Parts: sequence; structure tokens; C-alpha cells
Amino acid sequence: MFFKMFRQKKTLSTRALQGILELLPKDQIAFDKMKSKIQNIYESFGYIPLDTSVLEREEILLAKAGGDTEKEIYRIKKGDNDLALRFDLTIPFARYVCEHSRELNFPFRKYQIGRVYRGERPQRGRYRDFYQCDIDVVGDGELSLKYDAEIINIIYTTFSKLNIGPFVVKISNRKILNGFLESLNLQDRAPYVLRIIDKMAKIGADKVRELLQKEKLSVDQMNEILDFVSVAGTNLNVLAKLQSLNIENDTFKSGLDELVQVINCLEDFDVPSDYFKIDLTIVRGLDYYSGTVFETFLVEDTGLGSICSGGRYETLLSGFGDRKIPGVGAGLGLTRLFVPFKEKGLIKSEEKTLTRVLIVPLISDLKKPSILARGLRSRGINSEIFLDEVPMKKKLNYANKQAIPFVVIIGDDEVATDTFTVKNMNTGEQQRVALDSLYRILSAN
Amino acid sequence: MFFKMFRQKKTLSTRALQGILELLPKDQIAFDKMKSKIQNIYESFGYIPLDTSVLEREEILLAKAGGDTEKEIYRIKKGDNDLALRFDLTIPFARYVCEHSRELNFPFRKYQIGRVYRGERPQRGRYRDFYQCDIDVVGDGELSLKYDAEIINIIYTTFSKLNIGPFVVKISNRKILNGFLESLNLQDRAPYVLRIIDKMAKIGADKVRELLQKEKLSVDQMNEILDFVSVAGTNLNVLAKLQSLNIENDTFKSGLDELVQVINCLEDFDVPSDYFKIDLTIVRGLDYYSGTVFETFLVEDTGLGSICSGGRYETLLSGFGDRKIPGVGAGLGLTRLFVPFKEKGLIKSEEKTLTRVLIVPLISDLKKPSILARGLRSRGINSEIFLDEVPMKKKLNYANKQAIPFVVIIGDDEVATDTFTVKNMNTGEQQRVALDSLYRILSAN
Repeated sequence: MFFKMFRQKKTLSTRALQGILELLPKDQIAFDKMKSKIQNIYESFGYIPLDTSVLEREEILLAKAGGDTEKEIYRIKKGDNDLALRFDLTIPFARYVCEHSRELNFPFRKYQIGRVYRGERPQRGRYRDFYQCDIDVVGDGELSLKYDAEIINIIYTTFSKLNIGPFVVKISNRKILNGFLESLNLQDRAPYVLRIIDKMAKIGADKVRELLQKEKLSVDQMNEILDFVSVAGTNLNVLAKLQSLNIENDTFKSGLDELVQVINCLEDFDVPSDYFKIDLTIVRGLDYYSGTVFETFLVEDTGLGSICSGGRYETLLSGFGDRKIPGVGAGLGLTRLFVPFKEKGLIKSEEKTLTRVLIVPLISDLKKPSILARGLRSRGINSEIFLDEVPMKKKLNYANKQAIPFVVIIGDDEVATDTFTVKNMNTGEQQRVALDSLYRILSAN
Repeated sequence: MFFKMFRQKKTLSTRALQGILELLPKDQIAFDKMKSKIQNIYESFGYIPLDTSVLEREEILLAKAGGDTEKEIYRIKKGDNDLALRFDLTIPFARYVCEHSRELNFPFRKYQIGRVYRGERPQRGRYRDFYQCDIDVVGDGELSLKYDAEIINIIYTTFSKLNIGPFVVKISNRKILNGFLESLNLQDRAPYVLRIIDKMAKIGADKVRELLQKEKLSVDQMNEILDFVSVAGTNLNVLAKLQSLNIENDTFKSGLDELVQVINCLEDFDVPSDYFKIDLTIVRGLDYYSGTVFETFLVEDTGLGSICSGGRYETLLSGFGDRKIPGVGAGLGLTRLFVPFKEKGLIKSEEKTLTRVLIVPLISDLKKPSILARGLRSRGINSEIFLDEVPMKKKLNYANKQAIPFVVIIGDDEVATDTFTVKNMNTGEQQRVALDSLYRILSAN
């Protein structure tokens, strides 16, 4: 469609920008329901809302971005400041905590559900503007590893309640692989090796081997690394195998110890063991993760990639002298999930609009319809009055298209007899009733 | 505060950008409550959510912007498109309706609560990033004037329920003043004259006279205009006076007729007459308004300016051959109101966080605390577990600071006796109870 300009004759495309998901009303209602379900779950765990601007100083974003993200930042030039649109919610959160640390109570649990922006090349499942639903908890000086398990528990609870079918949170600890690489004397190559291992789920072991080869690792080293990250089995088995390797490296030991604690705590939290699995190929791309890392996959569609990722960051919030503010958090990319979840039938467009009752006045005096509408609204029943003077058929047609379950007709007869004609749009049943009966019918359904 | 960069030694300011309102948790909770109250009211009138991106094509925004707004647009240059951040929600809505008109049901009632961006010079009450809460209804071909009254009724309902004290919606119709200027043969000067009259509330009649003088109007013309827009009294009086002027101009007559209809309909809707008032100085700055226009003022602080404005636009959504999509809507600038409303005591920071219960385990096994937390959450009681091992005093201190009303302590004794120690943080009362009593205590309060 096109847009006519006011002063010029030019017409403009009204399509949403490429890479932006623009929803029709029924999908928007479904999307918002999912969003508020997530919000309620986050709040039920004691997380409180945060809502920062999408605008940040460019230098703040660049300070913590790194890698490919930097290329994807939308930059704005206006006035004195170099501004940019946030590409995640973690960095603005880190800035917020640094700025307001004296006014916050720790442990500080927050959630933020907001749009983030990445100037990526649009492709299936990748958006330039998408909702992230983040939870994070940060501590003053220290933060128990049990919070790592709490975050994973929240992910488990969220996806269970969203009814998306079987899924699994794959968990590792960065120190384990880092320590292992140190024990091979490969600490200098660790950043590159980690970045390659991170691609395992996407590109498979053979391609990973090719990429490692380019890093000029010896065949032995490659084999050792690939064997190491392929350790599989039940969580207990994997932990036992890792322990049996007897790797004499403190980083490794500390990572393994942390992983054991997190796994134990998940059991305390009664997260069913099908839903979390140690996987040493999980490393996460971003530099700021320092310990626990995790990604979440649909069991029946791993091709969708991780649907919720996160981890622990010990130093992201550095910057106040010696004050240490460690944190752990996760982000769920809601927009990216909406279309595939809809395709799989995991989300259904809302059949009904939010309106429960359409009031149709056949009289010009709107007093009686208006009083009824107010009464219904005060009872929590969303009600609209059809205000255009068009044929009855058109009004009922509107109610049908919107799937509004009840129509209340008010004409001269109804005014004279102090009654209302109510039509159940699903059954077609129509009856003339007094106000108290009307309220009863509309409240019950 | 400052932010340390990862790789460089540089420190960066972590302050929010100038002109951006960044809230602490207690204010954020209050802000969000106000936002969802407004959302519920909008939905109760049958308005459904819309949520477009903050990114738009620059040319779409420029097509309908005009005036000072153009200078305030944040522009982004990336890839093939010239992008910009929306400066209101009306133009993106117009684009959306143009694009999706075939898939929408009319009358289409929507609300959108979202951030908009204006690169203004920051000053009291002006923000660069602020929430707008918009409602709009658009029709296919025609849209009854009764919707103009409905929108004003929603404004009345919203501010009444927000408890902000006495306020008044000042209403006019652009055709009245335009027709009057035509009758004076000043139609060519109308845009300038309207823009000057629009400043009346801000700068007063004397300054308006000065500005009109610069437009080279004769003293007679100025007097006529100023006398005209100063017509005051009850709504009935003003309408009677306007009718008695016997101005033989079709635009004027049609505007007056529309105004009468809107005023009558507001009476049908039972909006108390103290809350709406005809005021011919109301013209609205934006070019797209074509009929009814209105602004809302606090009776006890008109200096705050309009707190909610809008009007009817017949041609904003032009662009599909001959299809006409008239609309009427209003926008409430939430961010701008938050600070002055808080200063006036109309909004209070939330004393309590959203969490109702803090569970404090004195044991290392988290099974029992976790089962309790899950039980409480499933009953709609937000609960958090204190997971750090710190002295008891610190835990209670946290509960106090967050104003969490209940603390439940679980130690060895409680596990052995299958009980819970619950402490009411307001009264200090502490008791050891079984699970069913605990649920009763926590649900009741």
C-alpha cells in the first residue's frame, strides 16, 4: 500500500521495514498475552521491572559489544552526543546498576521486556527489531551460585507454562573448557577455540574440525579438544567422567566444582532431569560471561537454535573502585520465537478480540447504552458501543468478524420496557431480559 | 558513576542521557501500574493493542510531520534505507492502517502505549524519550462524530480513575475558526493565524496580539479574531453566541454543527459538564487535524500545559485510491506527567516491591523452601528465596528495605516438625505454623 504525502504528489510505501515483524490484531493480542504470561512468571520469582530507553551512548554499547555485534549497531548522530540503539538489554542493565548502585537493594532481581535493535541482514528468524525478555540478578560483592540455578529454574518454569513441548537447557561452565585448554597450554588460543566450539550446534563437528585446523592446532590437540567437548551421557555420568580426567588445573577444578553445585541446586529446585543437560560445547559468544553458561533448545527442532540463553558475568558491572557486582541472567528472544511457534501450533492467534460485548443502539439517544457500557466495564467486562448508523446486518457482521461473543441490542421497545435484547453470537440464541439477568448472562460466559 | 571498558583503561559515564527519565525500582513499579491502569481502561472501551517498531522510514515521518517536529527527528543511516525514530504514534498508526486496511475490521479501535523520540533541547517536563498512550478509532469511508465524543469520554474516564484531581477537556472544532477566517476573507492567512492562536494558553492574549500584528492584520481584523476566540461561558452559552453571530459561511456552519453533536453526545455519555468546555483558542499544532480538536488541562495547574490532546483527522490516512479512512484519536504523554504528578502527590512511589513473601532457608538443602515457593507462586503470591549465605540480620534487613510484608524461615526445626516460621514484617509478630495455616495467613494479607 501507499501513503500520499500532504504537500507533494509522491506516494510512499507503507510496508513495515524489512526485518521487522508487524502483527495483525489477532496475532498482536496473542503476542501480548505471551508477553504478559512471561512477565507474570518473572514477577512470581520476585523479579521487578526495569525499563530503560532504547537510546544509549554509543561508547557504552561499544565498550562491551565486541565481535560481530559492533557492525550491527544502529547509530544516530544528533547534537553533542553520539547515540545508538541498544542491541541487547544486558549492557543497558549493567550501566543502570553501575549508575544507581547506591540506591538499589542487593541481591537486585530485575526483569526487562523490551525491544532491541540489530542491523542484521534480514533472514528467516532474524529480526532487526525484536523483543527480548531478560531476567538478571546481581549481588553486592558476592552472589551465590544458587542464583545460577534459579535463573535456569525460571527458564524451565517459563517454557513449561508456555506449553511449547519438550525442551532442554544445555549447561556448561566456561572455566571447565578454559581450564582444559590451559592444561593443554593453549590458553592464548582460548578465545578463538571457544568461538569455534560455540558454532558446534550450528555447523557440526566436521566443520568445527576444519576451523580448528585453520587455527593451526595439531591433530592431537584437535582430537583432545573434540573428545573433551563430546563427553556425553547423563549429568551424573558427565560429571564423573570429568572428575576422572584428573586434570590438574585450578580453573578447570573451580569450573567443575561450580557446575556440580548448580546441577545439585537444580535438583533441589525439583527441575526434572530431562530438562537440563551438561553440554561442554556450550560456551556463548559474548565476552562477558565468566562461569555458568547455558542455551535452551526445542527437543524436536534443534534447528531453531537456542531459544533462551544466558550465564554468569563476574566483571561486566565493574567500574566502582573495588566494588564487585557479579551477576547471572538470561534472555528470551520473544519476537524470534513467535513465528516458528505459530507455525508449529504452539501459539494460536486469538480468535476473539478483547471485547466481550458489543452494544448496538437502534435509538439516537445514547444514554441507556452508555449507562449499560459503564456498568459492564466496572464489572471488568470490556464493552464497546457501535456508534455508526449502518444497517443491522453490518453491525452483526462486525461482531462476527471480531468474534465478540455477545451483542446487546437496545431499541425503542427495550427502552420502553426497561429491558435488553441479548444475542449469543456462538449459539445464535436471542432473548429479552432485565438488567440483572443481563449482568448474570454476561458475567457467567 | 563510571563504567570500565573491557580492553581499554578508559572510564565512561553511566548516567542516563540528558532528557531521558530513568526510574528507580519503586518509581518504575508505580509507573508500570499507571501504565497498566490506562491500558485496562482503553481495553474496557473495546480498544485493542497495536505495537509497531520505533523504527520507521524517514520519508514516512517527514511526509506528515511539518513544522518544528522535523528538526527533532532522530535519523539513522544504515544500509539502503534512511531510517528514523518515530516522534509520535499517530503517523506509524496511519501507515499501519494504510498497509493492512484489507485485513482490518472497521471501525478499527486501537490503542498503543509506546516510547516516542524527539531530539528537543531538554527542559523541565520535556523529554527526548517518552511514553505516549494513544487511542484511535478509524472508519471505512465514514466515522460517526459520536466517536469524537467517545474519545473524550475515555479521556474523562482515564483521568478520573487515575485520581488526578479536577481537570477539564477544552474542545473546539477547527472548521469554526477556519470558517470564521474565511468570512473575514483571511483564508490565506489561516495556517499562520491558527498557529498563533494555538499559543494562547502558553503566552497570553497580549503576545498573541503582537504576533498577529507581525502577520500584518489590521487592528479591526485582530480585534475581531481575538473577540471571537474569547467567547466564553457555559457550553450552551458559547454555542448560542456562535449561532447568534449568523456567519454565512459553510465551513463555519458545518464546524458549529459538528461541535453541537459532539457536545450533545458527551451529555448522553454522562460526562459531567465540569469536565469539558468549549474553547475556541484550541486549534492543535499539527496539520492533519480537520474537525474536532481538544486539549486537557489540570484546573489547579494550567501551567503544566495540555496533559492529553487529540482530534479528528479526515485525510491523514489517505492513499488508497478513493478509499477514505477518517479517524479520531488522543494521546496522553505519560512520561511527561510522571514527575509533576509525583511532585503533586498524585502518584506515589510504591512502598512495597511486587514480592509478597521472602523465604529464608537456614538449611543447605533447598527442597523444602523450593516446594513452598512453587506452592505460593501457583497461588499467585510472588515469592523469592534468599539464596546467599549471609547473617540473618542482613536477610531481614533486605526484606525491610524492599518492604516485603512476610518472611518465612525454614531451619532444621521446621524441617523436623514439618512447620514454617512466619514473620509479619509490619507487626513483627512471629509464629510457627503448618502449611495450610501458612497459606491461609499469606493469602489473607
